[in-house]
Formats: sequence, structure tokens, C-alpha cells
Amino acid sequence: MEYINQLGINAKAAQNSLASASTALKNEALTAICNALKANKQKILEANSLDLENGKANGMSDSLLDRLALSEKRIDDIADSVLEIVALPDPVGKIKDGSTRPNGLNIEKVAVPLGTVAVIYEARPNVTIDAAALCLKSGNTVILRGGKEAINSNIATAEIMRNAIEAVGLDKNCIQLVENTDRETANALMKLNKYVDVLIPRGGAGLINSVVQNATVPVIETGVGNCHIFVDSTADIDMAVNIIFNAKTSRPSVCNAAESLVIHREIAEKALPAIKAKLDEKNVTLYGDEEARKIIDILPAAEDDWGTEYLDYKMSVKTVSDVDEAIEHINTYSTGHSEAIITNSYESVQKFTQKVNSSAVYVNASTRFTDGGQFGFGAEIGISTQKLHARGPIGLPELTTTKFVIRGNGQIR
Amino acid sequence: MEYINQLGINAKAAQNSLASASTALKNEALTAICNALKANKQKILEANSLDLENGKANGMSDSLLDRLALSEKRIDDIADSVLEIVALPDPVGKIKDGSTRPNGLNIEKVAVPLGTVAVIYEARPNVTIDAAALCLKSGNTVILRGGKEAINSNIATAEIMRNAIEAVGLDKNCIQLVENTDRETANALMKLNKYVDVLIPRGGAGLINSVVQNATVPVIETGVGNCHIFVDSTADIDMAVNIIFNAKTSRPSVCNAAESLVIHREIAEKALPAIKAKLDEKNVTLYGDEEARKIIDILPAAEDDWGTEYLDYKMSVKTVSDVDEAIEHINTYSTGHSEAIITNSYESVQKFTQKVNSSAVYVNASTRFTDGGQFGFGAEIGISTQKLHARGPIGLPELTTTKFVIRGNGQIR
Repeated sequence: MEYINQLGINAKAAQNSLASASTALKNEALTAICNALKANKQKILEANSLDLENGKANGMSDSLLDRLALSEKRIDDIADSVLEIVALPDPVGKIKDGSTRPNGLNIEKVAVPLGTVAVIYEARPNVTIDAAALCLKSGNTVILRGGKEAINSNIATAEIMRNAIEAVGLDKNCIQLVENTDRETANALMKLNKYVDVLIPRGGAGLINSVVQNATVPVIETGVGNCHIFVDSTADIDMAVNIIFNAKTSRPSVCNAAESLVIHREIAEKALPAIKAKLDEKNVTLYGDEEARKIIDILPAAEDDWGTEYLDYKMSVKTVSDVDEAIEHINTYSTGHSEAIITNSYESVQKFTQKVNSSAVYVNASTRFTDGGQFGFGAEIGISTQKLHARGPIGLPELTTTKFVIRGNGQIR
Repeated sequence: MEYINQLGINAKAAQNSLASASTALKNEALTAICNALKANKQKILEANSLDLENGKANGMSDSLLDRLALSEKRIDDIADSVLEIVALPDPVGKIKDGSTRPNGLNIEKVAVPLGTVAVIYEARPNVTIDAAALCLKSGNTVILRGGKEAINSNIATAEIMRNAIEAVGLDKNCIQLVENTDRETANALMKLNKYVDVLIPRGGAGLINSVVQNATVPVIETGVGNCHIFVDSTADIDMAVNIIFNAKTSRPSVCNAAESLVIHREIAEKALPAIKAKLDEKNVTLYGDEEARKIIDILPAAEDDWGTEYLDYKMSVKTVSDVDEAIEHINTYSTGHSEAIITNSYESVQKFTQKVNSSAVYVNASTRFTDGGQFGFGAEIGISTQKLHARGPIGLPELTTTKFVIRGNGQIR
């Protein structure tokens, strides 16, 4: 695939200047991106309106159109988020470990950029800017492959960013957009082992799965979140009601929203009516097992419900007889994103935090906090649900690898 | 693939007990493995002699037969290396980071086992024991798939280890061997995403490449080492001669052995004859570019030589006009393992250590030090040449991932 191979060659050539760029220069480039985005709002909005027209013509749903739509205010917000990345510490060059060996060898483990990061995503044009900015700050060249639904918006923003960084002296190929949005090109990008150091897919379960199945380059799986909240027998019911309402309804379309309520049999009779009453305020549809349905009037859950990430005002309800059964249910159906326990039992906390096998495990708090900003890491490029390299929010430090630098004076082995 | 799927199910079931096993119990199990291997030496040697007979009948080369062969002494050494792993700190449970957020949430980032590690390797029966011991200490269940050449030795040692750990109270399925050595079974293991958290291939370039191309589970690439030594114009020639001789000839079959000499034009006339004279002691065959061949009488290098990992008493010789050209040559042909510069120039050191894109970069020392033991990390399961998760020696800490544990008192977002 000539086209994608050339993007790889360009990215590698651009790496040299970027990997050794000073923090000051990278921050100057990011500031230039912010200013250029604001200065070229009309151009971006025109391109975006083309995408929106095409979307409507192709029968795109309202919620997808909403994700695709930009406005002056949204562009300002996205541009300002680039300035937040300026304020974050540069992860490159940090000496993470080191020692002097008995033979006098001095060993340092230094953080260095990964090299070239590829990002495959869907119809959110803000990802084009977020991902480019995070990769630039961490010294990585980036190859962006957004969905065809947003291609005009992406071409416009990528061109604005490329010109902005070139004006401050960086190679414009530090940021590249795959303008050919057919599937073959995406597949070729997934197999570009010679040039791509890591591929991060951002999107729904279908996209993630396609990347995992087809990629030969290293991948960080992100985002699919079938998040559970377990209400233990000793839970404070008011707290449980508040946390479930927040985790389910504050933003149902995101990966850290709760999808499944697991409840201890002993508290179900008291807690379920209160939980349902609160969720009714937002018309949440509940799908429960037989026992739950004896207590509240809800729809029956099918086996499929336990494993479904609804991303909607829907939630499954499972009753269990103890924390062990809750843990087993969660470890069976979870996608490994975020799970919470509401309890007042020390023993339950110990079991739940040790045995639940997910990237983030909460005690008496909403799953909605799984987010780079909320954790105090600043912006993130996604939430990793795999165990290799990064688990949980993927921030700037996770966009680096390490190199051992060993200084000697003639040592042989 | 029913068979391999069942191994995955077994491994996952065994994880529960192992992940929460105390360091004391894991060390007891490792000690039991050491003792059992020593007590069952005859059984292992009988199985190994079957493998050796088959190997000879199939025309296996002497060097492969040598890798395959066990002896009482080798079994003792391998068993003792298990005790070295007992002495290493347990990586599980280490709190790697943490904070209290302004909203009162307490966030800890805790090291936890990866889960299930699969290892695919060739005809070295010692890997069966090394890999099992490292995985056990780091709380991971392991699925071992060795080469068919060593299958009898592997079945014998795996059975001894499984019985030993069961006797101290662990699930014997913490260690499993794939007894079916056909290619379909290996391919099924590479796609066992539901159960395998990471796959580590150990072997030659063909095996590594096959895994990278076929696996859908996360992979850590290991080991292929086309290591370079660059002799700069200011090098101490005696030091250069010693380091090159050591890096090339002390153990030519290993991945951190040097394969390519890169030499500054200005020092070539003085240094090359001395280097050749020393390498002649071990009958090293040199393949040089035209300029090198004007100085010493060696064979011509073809384009292929620059990228070849000889693993033999052979070495390529490339002349360059400065450190920048050396860096470019190395970054073009290297496999990203280990490279060294011999120099007395501060500027060359800065350029070389910053711009050479490999897991270990040496100044005035032999590449042979890239090794978990030499770096002070203890035993290793391989040397990663990729950038994700682990780069360089893969020791016990790299066999863990992290989990965020977040404690609150009702926080919502």
C-alpha cells in the first residue's frame, strides 16, 4: 500500500526533529495550534457543515450528528484544551531508574518517545486535535485516521495544525491525517509494523475488535466499559442511590458510565425501590433477574444483558447472595474498565478491591471518575482496558517508552 | 480449538488462588520446584535422551543438539536458578503511585499480576523452568509451548513442577504445558484473547515474526539482536579491540552479541588491523565495505550483511565519515536491541545516546551486558526489543500490570 507506507516514511523522518525538540519548542507549537484553530474557526465550521450535510443525507442518527457537530464555542473549548497540555510536564527525558553496578557501569533508564503513534477513531473531530496535541507534547509523530463521517472537518483541522507547527520550525509531518478513509487503508495502517510503534483505537466495541483482530502492530485497547456498581448488604442506601444515579445518568454515552447494578439480596428489598424511584427521574429502563423483578416492576434481563455496554438510559440488575458472588459475576461479564462497591464492610472492601480484575476499582464513589483529568494526570488519549503498557487513563507518561543508557570505561563481560 | 481453550479455562481458574497467594507461599512453591527437579534428575535425563535420539535421527545440527542437551550439572544449575528467583523481591502489591484528590478521593496505583502469560519457545528445555518460575513469583499462571524437539524433556519437567506446587497447596494448573506441538495449536494459543493476557515468544527471528504476524493477543517481541559497535575517531584503540573481541566472541549465539562493526574513517587505518588481528584469534570472518577492504583483507559485504544477525563468528564492517552517519546506519539496520559507541568525545556521546533508537545504548562498554542479571534486576524472561510495556530485560516487575484502587465516601461527579 504505497500511500500508507509513504505516511510511515514521513512520520519516521519527522521523528528525528521532534524527539529531540525542547519542551519550550513543543509548547510553542501547541500554543500556535491553539491560536490557529481559533483564527480559522470559519474554515473549520464550513468543512464541518459539509460533514453534517452528508451525515443527514446518509440518515445519521441525532446522537451521532451531535458528536460530529462543531460550533464556535466547541472549537474554542477544544483549542483551550490544547493549552492545558502546554501546562502539563514534559514526560520525555525523565530518568526513571538508575544504578551504578559493582563493575562501575552507570545505568540510567530514561523516558523517550514511543516514536510514531497511530490513532484510529470514529466521528468525533475533537479527537483529531486532542490526539495530535498529546502526541506532540510527548515527542511522538502521529498518524490520525478518523472516520469518513468527519473527513472534511478532519482535513481542515489537520491542515491548520500542520501549518501552525511548521511556522514554529517543526516538520509538518509530525501530524499526518489519513485522507483516504477506505477500509483497505485502515487495514494497511494496522500492519505498518516498520513505522508504527503503537496503534490506539478509539471508538465502539466494533472498531476496537476489528483492530485487535487485524493489527500486527502493538495495540492499546481502549474504552469499552461495561461498568458495574455492587450495593453490598451494609451499604448506606442514600449514598448508593446518589452514586448509581450519577454513574448511570450524568453522561450515559461515555465508557465510565455504569451499565449494571449488582445488589446484595439482604438489602435489595429496601434499596431497589429507592434506586428505581431516583432512576425514574431520567426514565432509565431496568432489566432485572427474577428476584429483582419480585421487588420492583422492571423488564426481564436476558443473558445478553449482563455483558452489554448500553451507552444509554438502560441498566441491568442482578441480585447476589454475597460479595464473592458479586465479584464472580463482575469478573465474568466486565470489560475490565471500572467497577464500584458501595459498602460499610471492611472485609467486603478488601475482597472487592483485591479480586475484581478491572483497571479501576472504586469504594463508595462513582465510576465516572475514571478519567485522566479526574485522576490528576491531565488530558488523556483514551482509557486502556488491557493490561500491557497502560491500564486505565492513558496520559502523557504512557505515551513514552524507556531506553537504557549505560556509561562505562572499557567494561567487558 | 477445544484443547487450547481448556488450558485457558484452567489457567483462569488457577489465577484466583495464585494472584492472592502470599510471597511466602510462592517462595515455598519455588523451593519445592528446585528440590523436585534435583530429586528427579534421572527421570528428566531419560526424557531428554529420547529427545536427543530423535534429534540425531532427524539430522539436528550439533549446536541445536547442544542447546537441547541436559546433564546432571545443567539440571542442578537450572534448579539453583529457581532459588535465585526466591531471593528476588515480590513485585505484586507494590504501590507505585498515589494521591488524594481535592474532592477527598484517595487513589492508589497498585502492581498486580498480568493474569495469564503464554510463552512460545524453541528447543531449550531450561526455558520451561525459568519461565514457569518467573511467572509463579509474579503471580501469573503460565501456558508453556516449547518446541517439539524438546517435548519429552518439557513434559517431564512440567509434570515435576506441577506436582511440586500442588504439594504446597497451589493449583497445579498455575503451570501448564501445551503437549500438542502442532502448528495449529500454537496458532490457536496466539488467538486465545479471552484467557491470555500477554504472549512472549522466545527464539529466532522466524518464530518472533510468525507470532507478530499471527497473534491477536498482546505480544512482547523479544530477542533478535543485530547489535552494532561504533568506533569513533577519538576512540582508545586498545579499548575498542577489547570490547569488540568480547562482544563478538564471548558467546556468539546470544542476542546481545555484536554483529556489526561501524568505524570512523579517520581511525580506520590504525584501528582495523588491530581489531582484525584480535578477531583472527577466534577465526572471525569479516564482511566489509570497499573502504574497509582497502585497509584489511576481508570478504566483501553485501547489502544483506548490514541487517543480518549472524549468531556466529562473523561480523560486518562499515566505514562512516562521522557519528551522524553511524547513527543513521545503525537506526536503519538495527533490530533495536543494544548498540555501543567507543569514543572520547563528549559531543559524540551526547548524539549517540540521544539519537540511537535501541533498548540499550552503551558508551565504552560491551553490548554483552544487556541482561537482567548484569543490570541488577535478577532473572529475566527475555529481552524486549519493542517499545510497549517492557523495553530491554523483562524481569519480575515487567510481569505485572497495575490497578487503580479508589476509596471515597460517596463522591459523585
